[in-house]
Amino acid sequence: MNQTIETILKHRSIRKFKDKPLDKETVAMIVDAARHTASSNFMQSYSIISVTDKQMKKDIAKICKQAYVAESGHLFIMLVDQHRNAQIAKENGEDTSVLHSMDRFLIGVSDALLASQNMMIASESIGLGGVFLGSILNEADQIIELLDLPQLTFPILGIAIGYPDQSPQLKPRLPKAFMHFENHYPQLNNLNDNLKEYDEIVHEYYDLRDENKRVDYFTKQITDGMKRKHPGRMKLREHIQKQGFILY
Amino acid sequence: MNQTIETILKHRSIRKFKDKPLDKETVAMIVDAARHTASSNFMQSYSIISVTDKQMKKDIAKICKQAYVAESGHLFIMLVDQHRNAQIAKENGEDTSVLHSMDRFLIGVSDALLASQNMMIASESIGLGGVFLGSILNEADQIIELLDLPQLTFPILGIAIGYPDQSPQLKPRLPKAFMHFENHYPQLNNLNDNLKEYDEIVHEYYDLRDENKRVDYFTKQITDGMKRKHPGRMKLREHIQKQGFILY
Repeated sequence: MNQTIETILKHRSIRKFKDKPLDKETVAMIVDAARHTASSNFMQSYSIISVTDKQMKKDIAKICKQAYVAESGHLFIMLVDQHRNAQIAKENGEDTSVLHSMDRFLIGVSDALLASQNMMIASESIGLGGVFLGSILNEADQIIELLDLPQLTFPILGIAIGYPDQSPQLKPRLPKAFMHFENHYPQLNNLNDNLKEYDEIVHEYYDLRDENKRVDYFTKQITDGMKRKHPGRMKLREHIQKQGFILY
Repeated sequence: MNQTIETILKHRSIRKFKDKPLDKETVAMIVDAARHTASSNFMQSYSIISVTDKQMKKDIAKICKQAYVAESGHLFIMLVDQHRNAQIAKENGEDTSVLHSMDRFLIGVSDALLASQNMMIASESIGLGGVFLGSILNEADQIIELLDLPQLTFPILGIAIGYPDQSPQLKPRLPKAFMHFENHYPQLNNLNDNLKEYDEIVHEYYDLRDENKRVDYFTKQITDGMKRKHPGRMKLREHIQKQGFILY
C-alpha cells in the first residue's frame, strides 16, 4: 500500500464542485501527467482542449445534460488526434490514407484514454476530484462544431475536474470472480442468481447514499440499460466516419 | 509533487524483465486497481484475462512479434466485455440489440483502457515496470480464438508487467503548445519547421539510448509511420464486427 494505490482505490466520481477554478500551475501539472502517459508507437495521437469560455462550458453542460459540467473548476475535452500527424506527413508529401483505418482511430482512442486516467489520478492525488464525461458523445457533432475540430480529430471523453463539494460513498464493484479470468473466457451461467449477493450490496449502497434516491440492483440496472438508446449516441459511428475515421 | 505524480512523470515502458513472476497478492492488487477505476454508467463493460499458460504466452508473444511478452512477470489481456451484460439482460428476457452499436463498443473500450492505466500506475508505484501491447491487435482474430472469447467481447490491449531488468531514458514528449489548446482547435501550419527543436531533442534521445540503435526524428517517424500497414491491423474493423460489435 502506498499513496498511489490508496488514491486509486478510493476513487469516487465527483459531481459537485466548489466555485473555485483550477489555477494555471495545476492545469499545467495535469496536462503534464497526460503527456507522460505511454503512447502507441510514440505517435502521440491525441490532443487536449481546455474549455475555459463560460458560454462554451454551458453549451457542453447542456449536451451532457449535466449542469455540474459548467460548474467544474476545469473542463478538458480529450481528442483522438491524427490530424497533426497527417499534417506532418502531408508537408513531407507522404500518403496518409492509413489514418482513415479503424486501427489508427483506436490508436488515438487508446492514447487519449490512457492519458485521461493519469489526469484523473494526478488530480485526485492532490485532493481534487472529477468525473469522466462520456456524455459529450450524446451529440458528438455539436462538440465537433463548437471546438472547431478538423478532419481526423474526434472528441472521445470529457473530464471535469474541481474542488470537491461532496464526499460520496465508495461504489461497490463487481466481484473479481465475474471479471478476472485465467487463460480462457469462462462460460457464464445463471448470472442473475449468481450475482444476488452483489445485487444486495449495490442495493444497500444506493439505499445509504445521501444525495440520490435511486434504489436499485446491479442486474436491474444492466437490464434496464438495454433500453437506453439516446438518438445522438446511436449515430456515433456516423459522426466518427464524418471526421474521416474508420472508413475501413 | 507527491508519490503519485512522481510515478506518473517518470513512466518508461519496460521491455526487459527479470525471470520472476508476480505473486498472487500483487496480481490481486493490480486487478483491484482496475476495479476501482470509473466505469461508464456503472456498467463495468470490461473484463481481464490473466494469461499464465506458458505456451499461450509464447503464442501471444509471436502475435505481438515481441519475445519479451512471454518473459514478463505477468500478462494481462484487457477485454471490451458486453457479453456479461448481454447474458444478464437475456436471462431477464430483455432485448440486447443496443450492444451491437458503436456507442456500447466505445463504452467498453473506455472502461478497459481507463482501467489499464490504473493497473500500470499501481504496478509502477511498487517498483514494477511494464508495457502496453497494442500489438495484440496485429492478429486480433487469433487472440480471440486463443482465449475463447465469446461474441460481444474484444481484446483491446495487452499489459505485460514484471520486475524491470533495464532502466531506459525518459522519452521526450511533444511540447504542450502542439497538443494542449484552449477552447478551439487551432490552425496547424509548417509543423515540420515548427517542430525542429523537438526533433533535435528526440534525435538526441535516440542517440544516447543504449539498447537501441535507431537514430530518428519525430517528424520522420510520423511520416514513415504512414507506410506501416500490418495486414492484420488493416482488418481490424472486420475482426471487431465479427465479434458482434459496431454493426451500426
